[in-house]
Amino acid sequence: MINTQIPDAAAIISAYDLIKPYINRTPVLTCSMFNRMFDCELFFKCESFQKVGAFKYRGATNAVFSMPDNEIKNGVATHSSGNFAQALSLAAKMRGVKAYIVMPSNSPKVKSNAVRDYGGEIIFCTPTLQARETTLAEVVEKTNAVFVHPYNDYKIIAGQATACYELINEINKLDIISAPVGGGGLLSGTLLSAHYFSSATKVIACEPELANDAWQSLKAGKIIPSVNPNTIADGLKTSLGDKTFPIIKEYVAEIVTVSEKAIVEAMKLVWERMKIIIEPSAAVTFAALLENKYDHKGKRIGIIFSGGNVDLEKLPWM
Amino acid sequence: MINTQIPDAAAIISAYDLIKPYINRTPVLTCSMFNRMFDCELFFKCESFQKVGAFKYRGATNAVFSMPDNEIKNGVATHSSGNFAQALSLAAKMRGVKAYIVMPSNSPKVKSNAVRDYGGEIIFCTPTLQARETTLAEVVEKTNAVFVHPYNDYKIIAGQATACYELINEINKLDIISAPVGGGGLLSGTLLSAHYFSSATKVIACEPELANDAWQSLKAGKIIPSVNPNTIADGLKTSLGDKTFPIIKEYVAEIVTVSEKAIVEAMKLVWERMKIIIEPSAAVTFAALLENKYDHKGKRIGIIFSGGNVDLEKLPWM
Repeated sequence: MINTQIPDAAAIISAYDLIKPYINRTPVLTCSMFNRMFDCELFFKCESFQKVGAFKYRGATNAVFSMPDNEIKNGVATHSSGNFAQALSLAAKMRGVKAYIVMPSNSPKVKSNAVRDYGGEIIFCTPTLQARETTLAEVVEKTNAVFVHPYNDYKIIAGQATACYELINEINKLDIISAPVGGGGLLSGTLLSAHYFSSATKVIACEPELANDAWQSLKAGKIIPSVNPNTIADGLKTSLGDKTFPIIKEYVAEIVTVSEKAIVEAMKLVWERMKIIIEPSAAVTFAALLENKYDHKGKRIGIIFSGGNVDLEKLPWM
Repeated sequence: MINTQIPDAAAIISAYDLIKPYINRTPVLTCSMFNRMFDCELFFKCESFQKVGAFKYRGATNAVFSMPDNEIKNGVATHSSGNFAQALSLAAKMRGVKAYIVMPSNSPKVKSNAVRDYGGEIIFCTPTLQARETTLAEVVEKTNAVFVHPYNDYKIIAGQATACYELINEINKLDIISAPVGGGGLLSGTLLSAHYFSSATKVIACEPELANDAWQSLKAGKIIPSVNPNTIADGLKTSLGDKTFPIIKEYVAEIVTVSEKAIVEAMKLVWERMKIIIEPSAAVTFAALLENKYDHKGKRIGIIFSGGNVDLEKLPWM
């Protein structure tokens, strides 16, 4: 099923109704110490507490449960070594179909084990983009599974939009919502929800200086690919897609970039003070506050903590 | 003001009403993966999200706000190098009085900085129990501050009881509530709340094998002091007091002990799967499940995660 329409308000609401039984309604946390520190009101939407530890499960669930039985009967397939691999595996398991995950052969064992825990079947390939795509094509041909793109897909975008939708329904009159940007699935979903359901709210996207392709793309007015970025925020290394970029271009108020140092500092500070675990890709939004990247004083700000999957054996400040 | 009565139901309710404006109502979290893993229903009362990162703030707030103005006008004093030092400092600050904290001169800088952040005034002493007590006596004499004991005090016990009180009010029909035991403030409060407000619920206490003085005391029928225990659960090294022990003896269903290895494993597993930070002293309750220390199958179990203060530079699994 090809979905050719940018999700409208009704599409987001129906995505939410569809996935609600399967997802966690994640909490919105506050921290009075951080409010004092930044002189603003912060509301943290903790997708780190989502199933599989990241917002990706929302989109995967929407994609998987939107498909009719006869379309999905042979399962789903994707290439990912990150949170989407786990998300699609679990969503497929909930639907009762197979998930084929193409992963580079040098993926950390902790990631492949997590995918297997959620019931995904892994097909390893040599670690090049070329090999990923060829292997995926072979898998799809052999199994008749449906390819689900991790972010460049309107069903995925509508699913990711539900995080912001929940946030807006719980916390009113937000001046700003801040979200990280990698491939743009979460950001474009956030932009659409803010646009339809809280139009006075500005959305500010955050990305690492060392993977500033979204910032560059916005400036150039066309997609500038991310070329071998070397950031600790491993979920934000991907390039924008032709479905996510137009939404971002249309609706984003600003894209700001943050240093690696600030990402690590932000992550550690959130762990220490809020006692919650967020991953580096989630910490970019907090890093933007630390580096004073936009006018936040006196504002009500929603921060989307996108995920909490971290290898506890390798912490960036150690 | 000397409070000579074991707190009754009314005392716990009035403690709760008194401290409610100052404390966080901490969330009760669940984790479907752990429910499957242990074949029971677990409800985690996360005092790690309490102000100062530990349940200790409840008792400190009750003690500080119970005193009439003329009694507390010269402030409060205690000796502690742990969570209670921070808790009393912040409670005193909220009341607008001074807090004098006697700390051993070899306390980690991270702890003394935290106390100062919360407005406490630190008086360092040589790191012996003798010096602590002498120095505290001197401070009290000089300042006329009121000494507040970290746990052997009925106001403190009534304050700590409110964590379990909240848990019981939110989650009904718990078969078991499990809490760590150090000096016994949290445990005796938990026992009283369970007794008054959910009498069918059994309370099971957990402590490190290497600091098993509560287990020994229960067996001996009298307080066996904790002598230089060497456990990673640094909040559980203290001995029981003459106010906490009788309550424990009367009401506890069981005290179980856990290995250091299980404490570290429990802590890491909770971080990884629940994405929350708990300290080793909090992890003993989860370690008891890992080591299968009591009959938990098919039961509804409340687990009190007592705190989340951890030095992120020194993680026990690194």
